Formats: sequence, structure tokens, C-alpha cells
Amino acid sequence: MAAPLRLGLAGLGTVGIGVVQIVQKHADLIAARSGRAVVITAVSARDRTKNRDADLSGFAWEDDPVALACRDDVDVFIEVMGGHEGPARLATEAAIAAGKDVVTANKALLAHHGHQLALSAEAGGRVIRFEAAVAGGIPVIKALTEGLAANGMRRVMGVMNGTCNYILTRMEDAGLPYDQVFEEARQLGYLEADPNLDVGGIDAGHKLSLLAAIAFGTQVSFDAVELEGIGAISIDDIRHAGDMGYRIKLLGVARMTGRGLEQRMTPCLVPMESPLGQLSGGTNMVVLEGDSVGQIVMRGAGAGMGPTASAVMGDVVDIARGVRLPVFGVPARALVVPVAAAVAAASAWYLRMVLVDKPGALAKVATALGEAGISIDRMRQYGHSDAQAPVLIVTHKATRDDVNDALARFGATGVVVGTPVALRIEDV
Amino acid sequence: MAAPLRLGLAGLGTVGIGVVQIVQKHADLIAARSGRAVVITAVSARDRTKNRDADLSGFAWEDDPVALACRDDVDVFIEVMGGHEGPARLATEAAIAAGKDVVTANKALLAHHGHQLALSAEAGGRVIRFEAAVAGGIPVIKALTEGLAANGMRRVMGVMNGTCNYILTRMEDAGLPYDQVFEEARQLGYLEADPNLDVGGIDAGHKLSLLAAIAFGTQVSFDAVELEGIGAISIDDIRHAGDMGYRIKLLGVARMTGRGLEQRMTPCLVPMESPLGQLSGGTNMVVLEGDSVGQIVMRGAGAGMGPTASAVMGDVVDIARGVRLPVFGVPARALVVPVAAAVAAASAWYLRMVLVDKPGALAKVATALGEAGISIDRMRQYGHSDAQAPVLIVTHKATRDDVNDALARFGATGVVVGTPVALRIEDV
Repeated sequence: MAAPLRLGLAGLGTVGIGVVQIVQKHADLIAARSGRAVVITAVSARDRTKNRDADLSGFAWEDDPVALACRDDVDVFIEVMGGHEGPARLATEAAIAAGKDVVTANKALLAHHGHQLALSAEAGGRVIRFEAAVAGGIPVIKALTEGLAANGMRRVMGVMNGTCNYILTRMEDAGLPYDQVFEEARQLGYLEADPNLDVGGIDAGHKLSLLAAIAFGTQVSFDAVELEGIGAISIDDIRHAGDMGYRIKLLGVARMTGRGLEQRMTPCLVPMESPLGQLSGGTNMVVLEGDSVGQIVMRGAGAGMGPTASAVMGDVVDIARGVRLPVFGVPARALVVPVAAAVAAASAWYLRMVLVDKPGALAKVATALGEAGISIDRMRQYGHSDAQAPVLIVTHKATRDDVNDALARFGATGVVVGTPVALRIEDV
Repeated sequence: MAAPLRLGLAGLGTVGIGVVQIVQKHADLIAARSGRAVVITAVSARDRTKNRDADLSGFAWEDDPVALACRDDVDVFIEVMGGHEGPARLATEAAIAAGKDVVTANKALLAHHGHQLALSAEAGGRVIRFEAAVAGGIPVIKALTEGLAANGMRRVMGVMNGTCNYILTRMEDAGLPYDQVFEEARQLGYLEADPNLDVGGIDAGHKLSLLAAIAFGTQVSFDAVELEGIGAISIDDIRHAGDMGYRIKLLGVARMTGRGLEQRMTPCLVPMESPLGQLSGGTNMVVLEGDSVGQIVMRGAGAGMGPTASAVMGDVVDIARGVRLPVFGVPARALVVPVAAAVAAASAWYLRMVLVDKPGALAKVATALGEAGISIDRMRQYGHSDAQAPVLIVTHKATRDDVNDALARFGATGVVVGTPVALRIEDV
């Protein structure tokens, strides 16, 4: 049996302790599957004195993760600290410079610096693995990079922020408004310190940008992801969408179009009967569509100690077994700079607006849509008791530009009250 | 760039032609992802003169797959002929003896001879890959062997025969009896030449035995799989199960219990709202449950040219990339002979029977259940117009032995007409 693989673990939060627990609990199993022992030699965290749910007495301690990354007795640097600048970035760069392989759960770091890190790592013959960075325990990076490697990828989709899906599901189930459920989620500790990372779609957007790079052979380009959070979703939208057979999800979609790479993380309507529509609570789902394989759907826990540590350790076992692949599936120097699609592909749209209750109001809206080149698939006017009439419209295929044009025209009609809601209906 | 990886392709049916098409269509993509070209050098099939939907002119031809397997210009032998004896077995053994790696879609071959083949291959430093053998295009072997390698596996489940799921879905949707839908499926070409491979659960049982070997580190033991086909499922059972919130699936379940390895492929009731319950038509689903990762669900096409060829070529790309793992995740010599669990774990059961319409009939049945040690969760008697009363019972947890005991006691009551139906309710 080969020499033990020695891990240096930076970060002893939930995920780090999960990693310690797996290494200790499954030492024999992992050795059998890896063909060699896997041991933790050294750890690092901000506060050495903190009480943690694991026995760390056998590990060397470093206050500085950079020092940890450079230790001679570390083969693989595991980064589960988080943050896309500061210690996480410095230590990861130091690890690569010191000739270590890297396993990271840090989607923000890779979304911002993944291409440079991959170039450095590959120049030195090192690997960076990041299964834990996308959709937690679901082995989706592996499925996309390896299992579907013989496919031209057509589209990648995902519900990859459990907190957002929890909020939307809870709003629907309990009939509660966004603000109240947001506050619940905050008190339950489901939200990041900066909640906009969750509800603004940033965290999920990071993940999408990593999937897109692998799927389409492009340099990670998080800045080109169209981001729209869930803060404007009302319980009315959830109900009306439901009436028409849809659910609202914060859905990431990436695809290569004739006009360039389309990446968006926005609230979308999906058919209630589809796997994405049936996903409730904090669970994640990723949908991979390849030209040979068709549609592969993967579902599982997107966060939490066990699932995330499972993904980290799956990567470690791969390294222990000698599996060494380019970070994004092809050598980083071969990844192309994507042309960002200026306009996402056309789709059907859900439009909700309130009209003044006057004869001809609906006709004016329909005319404005027609002038914007949008045709109507379905329209519903709900019963109402005051002077304002809620109206729902499902359009035929239209681009975001067409929809923006229509929204501007609505303003000029004088019959639309407030700001209409426009949500994409993704064809899943 | 390394020398091209040279494939010898045995079998030019649907899957084989799918492989040819991918290699030809995606030569550049596969070379970029593999770090080397992947080429087909030689092919073999029964009938050279048959018209096929691919240009084979650039490949050497062998009438005998054994000769193909031994060619000097073949690095990887791809076996997509099928059959667990005869040419497929001989050629695979010859390929290993000749020092070739093997990629196969042949679940029957591996279910019967997988352990011996793995021993031979590993003794010679060769790999055998078989992603295409289980659940078609779904990269489940990879997810289980690699992605979840740091988990102690708790349970593996799967709906892995698309034909059976098509039949059950079609019975439900169209309200048609089994025999009629079976005949439809036969005419549509959905059934194997020996339909019992499909509807008897044998094909799906082969797949389950392979998953179990990986999940639990045991030698493949297909003979220990409890098999029960779908031929006895009536439209009444589908309807009654539906009334109670369940769907009937041909469900494979493998788990390691205190009494040994449990492997069964039998019709089960699963909650309609669960991912398994929502699976309709020919699609496959595999559920992997690990002690850290929790439940991972994977869904996709379980058969067909594109999906199966995608899985074959995913394995080929792995080999081209230098990924070399033991066939079943740990060296074959370390796989243990499993103790087959004599009795599967207890579960709730669905019982359907017809009683003579006499006072006290139901009480006699309830008494018989009590004597067998089975308690009743729910009971329904359906409205009826003749002298016979249909009765449904959902039990609390009971073993198969308990249920068999109860069924025997029912016979002695004199009030049960015909043979009761007993189906396990799997807790998913």
C-alpha cells in the first residue's frame, strides 16, 4: 500500500469538523477504497480555544492557514474557510505555490479567481477539486466533468441555494409573505451574514458560473451571470403561478447559444409536475442536458455538515486514488473567454399587473404587448372588489428586451397601477 | 499529447452504433477532455453485410469478437453485444488475458461473472468499467464508487427497468389491464426477446447486484437477489394503492443489515409524492443513501442509443485520462462473500383480498393477522354489489415470513376468495 495521503485542513467550522469526523470514523473504509491511508496531519482556524465537536489532539495546529498550506507534512490542502479574498485566497495560492493539491468548498473564491488558480495549479502539475462548492453533497461536478464527458452539453440548470428554495416553499405552504419568511429564515440561522448572498442569488450564481465553465469549456465568468434575487416575489405570484400549474424557483440556467454564453440566476416559473417544480424545502437539484445522454437530474442536500464533508472527502479519495484531471475538465490554458450573450434566449413569460377598472384597460395592455412584438398565450383577470383589477398574462416566446419594451409601453397606457411583475417561464 | 487511445468495438447494434456516432461527432471535444485522441480501430458484429446507420469504412473488421479483443491495435475492448455466456464472455476474458482494458454495457455478464472477471483484470493491472450496465445514461456507478466514496452506504434503491415502469405507468394512466399493456409493449419493441428478463425483474436484478457489490464491498451475488416480477400486478392494485397515496414500482433495494446483505427486486408501494413515486414512463431512478451525504437521487434515461453510448464513452474518457480504479471500488480480492439476509427487514405491507360477504368475515381475517403477529394500520372495505367484498389492509411493520404466515392462515379461515395480493411498502 502506498504512503498515507496527508491532509492539511484550513477551517474548523461545520464543514471542517464534518471532514474530521469522516476521516476518523471511516479510516478503514477510506483506506480500502483509496488504496492508501488518508490522515489529517495539521489544522488551522481562527480560534484555537473554541470548543469543537471533534478530537483534534492528534493534529498539529497552525494559526495561519498560509503556514498550514506550506507544511512539509501536508500533501493536500483543504480549504473550508470561505471568503473570496483574504486568508482563503492567500492560503490557496500558497498551497499551489508549495506544490500541494487543493480541495475546496469555496464557490466564491473559484467564481472570482478560479481561472487564475487553475492556470497556476496546472502549471505546477497540481489539481484543484471543488465538488463541495456546488450543490453540497450532490456529486454533480463529477457527473458533468467525467460521467458526461462524451456529451456536447446543451443546458445546465440548477436550484442551488437551499435557503431561497426554503423561503419560496415556506411562503407557498404557509401562505406567508416574503418579509415574514425571510425573518424566520434569519432566526433559524439559514441566512449568510450578508443575506444578499442567498436571496440576491449571488451564492447560487457563483455555483452556476462554475458549472458553465465545465459544461462549455469557457473561463469562469461570474460577472457575466444575470442575477435577480427572490426579494420581489410575492405570495400572490406564488399563488397565481400555482393556479396555472407552475412553481416559482430561483433557477440557474446556463447554455451556449449562437449569440454567446447565456448565464442567469433568476426567479423562474417551472411546471409543477417537473422534477424542478416538485423540489421543496432546502434540497438542491441540478439538471444536466447533454446531446447524447438527454436529461440527467440530480437531487440531494445542498449544504450541511455531512453532505458538504462527503463531497470534500470524495475529492480527497479521488486524489488518494491517483485521479488527476484538469480543474475545469480541459486544461485551463485551453478554456476560452466566453462571449456573453447580450440577450438571453426567448421564452414564455409570466406577467402580473394591476389595472385600473375602466372599460378598455385590458385592450390597452394587449395593444402594448402587440406593439412590443409579444403575443399572448393565456390571460386571466381575477375577481376583485375594488377599483383595481389584477391581471395575469402568459406570453408566447419573447426576449427580455421585448418584455422590457412592453413594460415601458404599459407605463404609457395610464391604466397599469404600480410596477408589473415579469418572470421567465423556463421550459424544463 | 499522448498517443491515441484505440478502441475495439464488439457489437454494432443500437449501442454500438451510438458509440461510433459519438466518437465521430465529438472527436475534438473528446480529445480536449481526454488529453489525447480517442479512435476506433476495429469493430466486430455478427453480420458484416447489414446496413447500419454509421460509416464503418475506416475500421478493421473482425468476424470473431475474440480476435478483435486480441488485436495489437486495440487498447480498450468495448463489449456491447450482450448475453452472459458465449461470445460476450469469451471475448471479454480474451481481452483481459491479452492485457486490454474493458468497457462493457453487459449487466448480465457482470452479475454472473463479475467477480471472476474483476480478479483476472486486476491481477493483470487492467480495468473493467461498466457505467452503461446500470441505469443507462445516469452516471450512477461513478457517483457511488467515486463521488460518495467517503460514505458508509446505508441503502441503495432503484427503478432500473424502463419497460416495467412504462407498463405500470401506462396501466395507471390508461386504466388498462396488465396483459393488454404487456402486449402493447411487445409490439412497440420495448421487451427483450425473453420478456421475463424485463417483467420478471431479472434485468433490473442484475443491475441491483452490481450496485450492492460496490456499496457494501461484497462479491457480486446475483443469485441472492429476491426476485418478483410485475406480472401479478392488477389495475385494481394500482388504483387502490393510488387511493391511499401510493404508486407501485418495480423497486430494487439493497442494504446491509445485522442479518446480512438484503437484495430484492420486487414490486413495492412508494409514496406518490416521493421522487420514486413521481417517476413515470421509461425513465430510470437510482437513490443512494450514505451516512454523511444523506439521500442522493439520480434520474435519467435508462436505455436507448444516446444515453447508453454516453455512459460507454464516459468510461472510455476516464481510461483515456488515466483514471484506473478497482472494478468494484475496492480490489476484488478484498471483496467479501456476503451473507445473504435470510429474511428481509420488516416493513409495512399492502394486502388486498376478496372476502365472502358474510358476517364475521372481516373479523376472521383480522384475527388471522393478529395470530401472525401483524398489526393493522389501515383497513378499507370497498363498496360491492355481489357476494364478494374487496378488502384492503395496510399493516404496521412485518417481515415477509410474518406475511406468509398470515397468508397461510387466511386460507384456513374459509372466508378469503382466491389468492390475496401482498406488496411491500418501502419507506423512501
